[in-house]
Amino acid sequence: MRATALLSALNPLRPLDTVDAHCDLMCGVYNPAQARIEAESVHQIAVKYHASDDETFRQRCVIIKEERAELVKHHLSVLWTDYFKPEHLEAHPDLHTTFWNAIKAAGEAKKTMDPTAGEELLRQIDAIGDIFWATKGGKPEWMTA
Amino acid sequence: MRATALLSALNPLRPLDTVDAHCDLMCGVYNPAQARIEAESVHQIAVKYHASDDETFRQRCVIIKEERAELVKHHLSVLWTDYFKPEHLEAHPDLHTTFWNAIKAAGEAKKTMDPTAGEELLRQIDAIGDIFWATKGGKPEWMTA
Amino acid sequence: MRATALLSALNPLRPLDTVDAHCDLMCGVYNPAQARIEAESVHQIAVKYHASDDETFRQRCVIIKEERAELVKHHLSVLWTDYFKPEHLEAHPDLHTTFWNAIKAAGEAKKTMDPTAGEELLRQIDAIGDIFWATKGGKPEWMTA
Amino acid sequence: MRATALLSALNPLRPLDTVDAHCDLMCGVYNPAQARIEAESVHQIAVKYHASDDETFRQRCVIIKEERAELVKHHLSVLWTDYFKPEHLEAHPDLHTTFWNAIKAAGEAKKTMDPTAGEELLRQIDAIGDIFWATKGGKPEWMTA
Amino acid sequence: MRATALLSALNPLRPLDTVDAHCDLMCGVYNPAQARIEAESVHQIAVKYHASDDETFRQRCVIIKEERAELVKHHLSVLWTDYFKPEHLEAHPDLHTTFWNAIKAAGEAKKTMDPTAGEELLRQIDAIGDIFWATKGGKPEWMTA
Amino acid sequence: MRATALLSALNPLRPLDTVDAHCDLMCGVYNPAQARIEAESVHQIAVKYHASDDETFRQRCVIIKEERAELVKHHLSVLWTDYFKPEHLEAHPDLHTTFWNAIKAAGEAKKTMDPTAGEELLRQIDAIGDIFWATKGGKPEWMTA
Repeated sequence: MRATALLSALNPLRPLDTVDAHCDLMCGVYNPAQARIEAESVHQIAVKYHASDDETFRQRCVIIKEERAELVKHHLSVLWTDYFKPEHLEAHPDLHTTFWNAIKAAGEAKKTMDPTAGEELLRQIDAIGDIFWATKGGKPEWMTA
Repeated sequence: MRATALLSALNPLRPLDTVDAHCDLMCGVYNPAQARIEAESVHQIAVKYHASDDETFRQRCVIIKEERAELVKHHLSVLWTDYFKPEHLEAHPDLHTTFWNAIKAAGEAKKTMDPTAGEELLRQIDAIGDIFWATKGGKPEWMTA
Repeated sequence: MRATALLSALNPLRPLDTVDAHCDLMCGVYNPAQARIEAESVHQIAVKYHASDDETFRQRCVIIKEERAELVKHHLSVLWTDYFKPEHLEAHPDLHTTFWNAIKAAGEAKKTMDPTAGEELLRQIDAIGDIFWATKGGKPEWMTA
Repeated sequence: MRATALLSALNPLRPLDTVDAHCDLMCGVYNPAQARIEAESVHQIAVKYHASDDETFRQRCVIIKEERAELVKHHLSVLWTDYFKPEHLEAHPDLHTTFWNAIKAAGEAKKTMDPTAGEELLRQIDAIGDIFWATKGGKPEWMTA
Repeated sequence: MRATALLSALNPLRPLDTVDAHCDLMCGVYNPAQARIEAESVHQIAVKYHASDDETFRQRCVIIKEERAELVKHHLSVLWTDYFKPEHLEAHPDLHTTFWNAIKAAGEAKKTMDPTAGEELLRQIDAIGDIFWATKGGKPEWMTA
Repeated sequence: MRATALLSALNPLRPLDTVDAHCDLMCGVYNPAQARIEAESVHQIAVKYHASDDETFRQRCVIIKEERAELVKHHLSVLWTDYFKPEHLEAHPDLHTTFWNAIKAAGEAKKTMDPTAGEELLRQIDAIGDIFWATKGGKPEWMTA
């Protein structure tokens, strides 16, 4: 069974002549959901922090939000340099600035317990997701079904 | 703004009286997509391994598949013990066996370059995803939209 | 020198026809002591937390306990899916529940500074240790000597 | 003793009115040497790979180069989003492209055992180092002495 | 319940007036078993490597032995600087050399698939274990029982 | 191009007949700057802790200082056992004690928010740097230029 057939079986929505055909990367699997899910944690931790007056719980919020925001930064950085190629940059000339701001937003969300920092981060990741899925021609069925 | 209002704003499909209301965990954010995405890597790496005869590329396949399968195991273990509660077990009496087999399938996928090991892993994760999203009352809009 | 001879030299108490003979895993080395030692840290950190009124010390207790409990969860998960086989499950039908509860107990010990959470965790790990060493036919000499 | 006095004691070459004064980050310590040293490893590993015909040694080269190149990517990403501020971007309008290319060069150096990939990576990191140290007004004495 | 009472309950063999009483460390839990168990993996991986002619299995042996030996180094380093105190050094003037050689032996075991490197490492860790348990007045009951 | 030529191109100050010629290690790249930079973070975090009264900021200081000091310990341990060889020990008979104290100083700097602990750590790392660069015959040009 050829790789394209397997890819097709895995994701029937995905055209076989995607930019992945020129992909020089390892596994070719990218998904902004990874950054999004960690950013949801960042956001929810800040929400739950304010709903609690337990000192240990609140300290754990600070610790775990730090880790989760670091994972957001990592996942965004991987998307920026590993997935996106010069041809994407032509279609999206603000791509660098978009990622710079989103990764900085993850850094900001480390510094505060204000849930709006996490909301802002989610907004920026969703904007990246829109760009990403446009280059893919849509989400895979396992996400949308 | 209350946590439930924020949750609702974040995911309008999610009923406010979910089992999360009894959740004693940190951030309450779980998503089987994390295991699924890493398992896609595991699968694709095995596919691409066979499509290449570059020795360095193939050694990197072995290395990176090992890491990705380890992440699958971690994400599945978190779902099993952190998300699922005794009340879920009543509704899904095979839950323990389902996870045991899925985590073992991730271990099997470390041992072989046969892409069918990754396909089998994806199938088991998707079965867990079905159980998970049933307990949630559906996926969030950012996945399905 | 054959592997079985080396194994025997390493641990004269271990019969050569153990279940390891069917082991498809990497190195075949498992030891619940790994989970036990990290759980001792979890427990002791909670004890020492209450004996101190130094703010920095107490915050470090929360941080380090979080890490150590995470390691407990990892070590237990490895034992559950990598060491234990279907034939063990027949002899120990409560195996899944035992591990589920022990890993959940490690999660509980993250959430509280009450040393009884660590004591409970140690108790559950020792119960797993009893099952484990029974399948092995006894501990290695380097532990007992 | 004030922070600026300590900073001054630590690095007498560093003017006290640096951009750090507006720094909202954690510790304010950045140094492209971290990326440079890992990139030297990446480069040397490729050199030594070709000088050896020991199979285990060569496989370890592939493994360790992968890790080191990943560290290069991490250190560069931290510099890009945590150290550099909008005012730097005005003075260095190619900053985003410079980092994008350098992080991509680290990715390329993972894929090949050709030492020129590591040489190219070092060249790009040194160019970033020049920009960085210009914003700082020179290197600290512990580096140059 | 006081810490000493808990310690005593945990390990009835351990005298209450141990050097731990002067311990300035975090949790006071140290155990050379951590290094020993990882070193057993290092050793067994080399043994199993030679018993297999599966290319993927053998590459995984190189990868996982590297990780396990790194963990041995870490655990030994923690024992050396965190557990051992100047008063131990007086009683064991070769302590530094003993650890230097053992950590170097872990490094050597990374470089070769010869199982004797792992055997030598185990021997050196057991010698450290003897020194360690002598300072403790014996092993805890959960190890020996 | 031979490895020595490349090494020479990389660092013209470095004599080609260095002790590295006997080096059995992986990449031969060592630099005490790695420990120094993390120790600067340890120091600056303690300085900035006292300049702030924001509770979240101060908790993050404790968390991040813990991580950075751990990295210092790791980098020092690597230098001690991987770089330094028996012939260095003859020339520097206090080498073991110097490293033991420096790694212990990193441990001390975890325990306190007093910036003098970080200052002391930096002093000890600089002393190690002096020994290290003496064995190398000087720093590379990318550091000093």
